[in-house]
Amino acid sequence: MTVERGFPAEEFEQRTKRCQAEMADQGIGAILVCTEPEVRYFTGFHTPFWQSPTRPWFTVIPASGKPIAVIPSIGGASMSATWIDDVRTWSSPAPDDDGISLLADCIREVAGDGAIGAPMGPETHMRMPLRDVDRLRAEVAEFVDVTDIISGLRMVKSEREIEKHREVCGLVSNAFDELPNLLATGMTERQAFAAFRAEILRQGVDDVPYLVGATGPGGIDDIIRQPSDRIIADGDLLIFDTGSTIDGYFSDFDRNFAFTHASQGAKDAYRAVWEATEAGLEACRPGATTTDVFAAMNEVLKVNGSLGNDIGRMGHGLGMQVTEWPSHTATDDTVILENMVLTLEPGLLWEPGKAMVHEENLVVRAAGAELLSRRAAPELPII
Amino acid sequence: MTVERGFPAEEFEQRTKRCQAEMADQGIGAILVCTEPEVRYFTGFHTPFWQSPTRPWFTVIPASGKPIAVIPSIGGASMSATWIDDVRTWSSPAPDDDGISLLADCIREVAGDGAIGAPMGPETHMRMPLRDVDRLRAEVAEFVDVTDIISGLRMVKSEREIEKHREVCGLVSNAFDELPNLLATGMTERQAFAAFRAEILRQGVDDVPYLVGATGPGGIDDIIRQPSDRIIADGDLLIFDTGSTIDGYFSDFDRNFAFTHASQGAKDAYRAVWEATEAGLEACRPGATTTDVFAAMNEVLKVNGSLGNDIGRMGHGLGMQVTEWPSHTATDDTVILENMVLTLEPGLLWEPGKAMVHEENLVVRAAGAELLSRRAAPELPII
Repeated sequence: MTVERGFPAEEFEQRTKRCQAEMADQGIGAILVCTEPEVRYFTGFHTPFWQSPTRPWFTVIPASGKPIAVIPSIGGASMSATWIDDVRTWSSPAPDDDGISLLADCIREVAGDGAIGAPMGPETHMRMPLRDVDRLRAEVAEFVDVTDIISGLRMVKSEREIEKHREVCGLVSNAFDELPNLLATGMTERQAFAAFRAEILRQGVDDVPYLVGATGPGGIDDIIRQPSDRIIADGDLLIFDTGSTIDGYFSDFDRNFAFTHASQGAKDAYRAVWEATEAGLEACRPGATTTDVFAAMNEVLKVNGSLGNDIGRMGHGLGMQVTEWPSHTATDDTVILENMVLTLEPGLLWEPGKAMVHEENLVVRAAGAELLSRRAAPELPII
Repeated sequence: MTVERGFPAEEFEQRTKRCQAEMADQGIGAILVCTEPEVRYFTGFHTPFWQSPTRPWFTVIPASGKPIAVIPSIGGASMSATWIDDVRTWSSPAPDDDGISLLADCIREVAGDGAIGAPMGPETHMRMPLRDVDRLRAEVAEFVDVTDIISGLRMVKSEREIEKHREVCGLVSNAFDELPNLLATGMTERQAFAAFRAEILRQGVDDVPYLVGATGPGGIDDIIRQPSDRIIADGDLLIFDTGSTIDGYFSDFDRNFAFTHASQGAKDAYRAVWEATEAGLEACRPGATTTDVFAAMNEVLKVNGSLGNDIGRMGHGLGMQVTEWPSHTATDDTVILENMVLTLEPGLLWEPGKAMVHEENLVVRAAGAELLSRRAAPELPII
């Protein structure tokens, strides 16, 4: 493993200062964040402990100075090891007041006359009981939506973040390259999933939080499925889509394979999504929009007889979550900026009930898209 | 793998009917749930796709009849393969109306004159943008908190659920038994984590979503940490705590080890948490409360010179999440019922900055606690 772990304090300083510049422009005195990626973005606090729904965790970004952590005491030692100086803890779980009065005091202390921001828009949620959200708003103030500030920050990656993406995408590319040696007809889907998961880990990723896939005779109808005891047979198509992580940064790309043989329809559909990805790579430049990228890929799919798809978009941002803002849709219209890390994910129904989805990961550079995943073969691979 | 996958429709029928009986008692016409375990509990819809924050997913439980799924079209095929008949989809992401009007129509259609329930209390959150929560409440009605209904249902497991817990706890017990053969001084923490994760998977679990641990000279100070490049040395203590899954049901227990030798203080602390667990196992019977269980364990720790701990509880419920209601605390006072699946997790600071935490998993039977994890050794194991 060559990639640097964690980030130096200057990374968090830069994130915080960029945030505070936006806050000043919008007259916001404090921002409250409470989800895992938001808290990690500003503090560096990194633990899977968030899977436990028991305790809320808060971070307050003041108009100037370092963020303040308001967290359960079980996290005090870990949070104190980050760049954060002001760590305020309470013993949680405490159902009658699970940090709310401590948090309210903190927000009142730092917000001054400024508005209080919280992400309230697309792709966000408040990870705390709704009862406590309402109580906090009643005690302190209504929130102003700052989804645009947070998404604007997180969509553009630093070189250190990009290196983590590059590392994990390389390792997962290696694992996909090994797949023909790992899989064979006669295995169950569950065995195939287990073999692939073990291989990705063997390559050196930290974890494989996201692994979906499916097999089917001549094609597959669903791309977010968990494995079954179905036995892989001659003529099956298989898709694996994985989000794996290094240091909490994701890869997210898929690969399609056929076993022993494939129909011309399947081969043509594969070629169509591969060509659509080429068009997406070409379109993905600073100054273009996500809608331009969508349109470029969609045109290729239409020409190739797509019957549509039910995914709702053709790729998205990538970061500390397996999907992040923005989305390549017909209406998203987010301006693409240098150092965004994005996926391209064109998909089509090539026959009723038969889907083909292709996905690559890239970073946007001044000159255009730079691949992070190793480009898939242009023709459907047959195992 | 011998455990049955998924559940027959009658399992979901029973869950739904138990919910509807409570709803009738409380005059509730419809319940809205929107988190992964809640939706899975009522529908059987099981996918890691929830890690993508982009799209909200909803399930409405009417006063009678099957639940109704209101979900993005990308999940339509998977949801239609469950016992649910009424699957209403929209193309998401759609930031201007991401399912809210479709959901509002559905709730109005089924709720009649009844109140609209949503879980708003401890351990819950609304997994949708706060802006959309507010819009939904403005369009339809304020919610009534039904945390008690949902937690009451989920805390008591069916025999089918218990079998999944038993399976995964057995496999993870096997993996812990192998640890002395996998670990040695000279390895880094990161190598130790990777070796243990691979072994748990080799034993046959589906996934290892939760793995934390730490090493330290003579003791450890933090139990929710991610691994570092620290090299394990003679005299180190190590803790591993893992939540692994079979069919979406968790184990959650930890083990402590010393390398080559340990101080008498460490050995005594280990023995204290082991004895506290014995007291907890004895106290964990139908009709007792979580507070009784806490008190029984706490008494043993106090007698053994505990300096307290910052965890906030001594165990919790276990299920589709690595932690669930209830909590063993001094004030929780939840009545323990037959077929609850619980952890016992006594912890103490035995010296300033040195923590020892012990954890086992059990199911409550009429006659008392039945272990699901294989009981840890009574004395600190030395590798």
